Amino acid sequence: MTQNTQVIFKARPTGWVDDSHFEIVSNPASTPGDGEALVRNIYMSVDPYMRGRMREQKSYTPGFELGKVLQAGAVGQVVESRAPELAEGDLVQGMLGWENYSVAKAGQLFKVDGKAAALSYYLGILGMPGMTAWVGLRNIGKPRTGETVYVSAASGAVGQVAGQIAKLQGCRVTGSAGADDKVAYLLDELGFDAAFNYKTAASLGGALGEACPNGIDVYFENVGGAMLDAVLARINPLARIVACGMISQYNLERPEGVRNLATIVANRALMQGFIVSDHMDQRDDFLAEMSAWLRGDKIQYRETVAQGIENAPAAFIGMLKGENFGKQVVQLADWPA
Amino acid sequence: MTQNTQVIFKARPTGWVDDSHFEIVSNPASTPGDGEALVRNIYMSVDPYMRGRMREQKSYTPGFELGKVLQAGAVGQVVESRAPELAEGDLVQGMLGWENYSVAKAGQLFKVDGKAAALSYYLGILGMPGMTAWVGLRNIGKPRTGETVYVSAASGAVGQVAGQIAKLQGCRVTGSAGADDKVAYLLDELGFDAAFNYKTAASLGGALGEACPNGIDVYFENVGGAMLDAVLARINPLARIVACGMISQYNLERPEGVRNLATIVANRALMQGFIVSDHMDQRDDFLAEMSAWLRGDKIQYRETVAQGIENAPAAFIGMLKGENFGKQVVQLADWPA
Repeated sequence: MTQNTQVIFKARPTGWVDDSHFEIVSNPASTPGDGEALVRNIYMSVDPYMRGRMREQKSYTPGFELGKVLQAGAVGQVVESRAPELAEGDLVQGMLGWENYSVAKAGQLFKVDGKAAALSYYLGILGMPGMTAWVGLRNIGKPRTGETVYVSAASGAVGQVAGQIAKLQGCRVTGSAGADDKVAYLLDELGFDAAFNYKTAASLGGALGEACPNGIDVYFENVGGAMLDAVLARINPLARIVACGMISQYNLERPEGVRNLATIVANRALMQGFIVSDHMDQRDDFLAEMSAWLRGDKIQYRETVAQGIENAPAAFIGMLKGENFGKQVVQLADWPA
Repeated sequence: MTQNTQVIFKARPTGWVDDSHFEIVSNPASTPGDGEALVRNIYMSVDPYMRGRMREQKSYTPGFELGKVLQAGAVGQVVESRAPELAEGDLVQGMLGWENYSVAKAGQLFKVDGKAAALSYYLGILGMPGMTAWVGLRNIGKPRTGETVYVSAASGAVGQVAGQIAKLQGCRVTGSAGADDKVAYLLDELGFDAAFNYKTAASLGGALGEACPNGIDVYFENVGGAMLDAVLARINPLARIVACGMISQYNLERPEGVRNLATIVANRALMQGFIVSDHMDQRDDFLAEMSAWLRGDKIQYRETVAQGIENAPAAFIGMLKGENFGKQVVQLADWPA
């Protein structure tokens, strides 16, 4: 019987997540029932939104259950199918588990083309984070040629895609990240017009003012707290804030206070949250456009790959602290096998 | 020569506004030039947005100039016209001065019908504040039957209209105000489903939770700060925050910190500022609908009327402190004359 290493949600964190919140166990892999398939997971994703699912308070997705296997977007290969639409060997993507083998209903698995792009890309630029960037700009940010777009966490899974899309649309694109090599990546490889290291900047306001001398028309918000406050002080009339995430706040017991919200009134500005799963009707358009950009070398993509299910907790914790460079994924099995 | 009592903007306030920021002077009334009219002002408006115009920082309207007559929306009667489209005796409305007589370009004056409604209504329910409530709900709040709408400063010029419009649209309408008689007005005269005195409530969160047991779908935001924070903790998925004003913050040197903004992300919520003057293309629709509601007794309206230009500063200061009940206006001349 195939053994399955799994990561269990052991304890609910109140501040920063650490190893004590996880437990690694080994069990025999489950057997698929009618209409289900057994998937050998090849790559799994760790994402900031998962921190929200570790809380008891309501969020847009249901919370993780204590004592159960944690969930994650993953790409894998069908090793046993009891559903007519899936065959052994098919490559699929879905919301699976932090584990080597997952059983899932066939209707919740989507086939992916392993020849069109690296498999891990389906967890990133061609998956939820990439579509999050695309949907957030298309539906909320609506950047226009010549406008200034500022992206925080700009070298991250979503940020690097958001910035490049805005660049393709003719905007002045600026961003921040938490390390000098990430800032260099934004400037030298992604073609950002300005970028700064928010950890070493003398002041956020000063750095933002220098990066965005004409103010900010679109803010792709991944960070929250003091960064949002500094941005609010510099938004232009009719600015749009794409409220994608607020990672700086997720591990705080008491979030930072944001004082400059009156600028939303004064500038007739908009701030809007969203979740990509509300917009799956736009998925085909997204995949067509993003795939074309990738094929045409119009867009770059960077990821950090951790190895082995045992290292998934450390990859997640490191991502929350900004230790990853680009999209953080975990490789669970050799590929090609 | 007619003497004209005027209120000059003498000093820029840094915290609360007081008498020292104004100077009352008397000068001969100006003479209209070609295309202009001299208007005897009958009612003038004092509004929260004026506090923003007293700052040097950018706001949606240009700042008041030190040493000049302050500006205000006013209704008056043409006493001398050098414009073919205006005749002596015409009743007009426009952005005029804190003074008994103003000269204005004919193109910036709009005739009003003194028989259709009380003249002061053109500064309130049929003017900028009423249209602000109507436009904010129509374009941003978009309340649907059965949803919970919460209005802060709910007995004020804008709030009382916003709450009643939402009620006409079949919503559960709740509100807060800063005095027990105002709360009684909301419940007994305007038909609010719940209301509370935010000054005497044991906690904002507790009072809001009791008033809105099913959460908040639309927040008509007039207040900001701690009130906004308490609302953010109770918004429902896809909530809309109509960011009309944040009067609790205007006189603070350092605004309060708002900590619960991550709920905007978690609930895919929207917060949007606006200014009524961006939507003047909807003015005819507004006037038609609001006039019909008034004629049909579908909507109530309450105002506080101060007497005499000398009392305009006190009326403005009192309004900022919440001492008015309903829309605050200042009567500058007898009417009918």
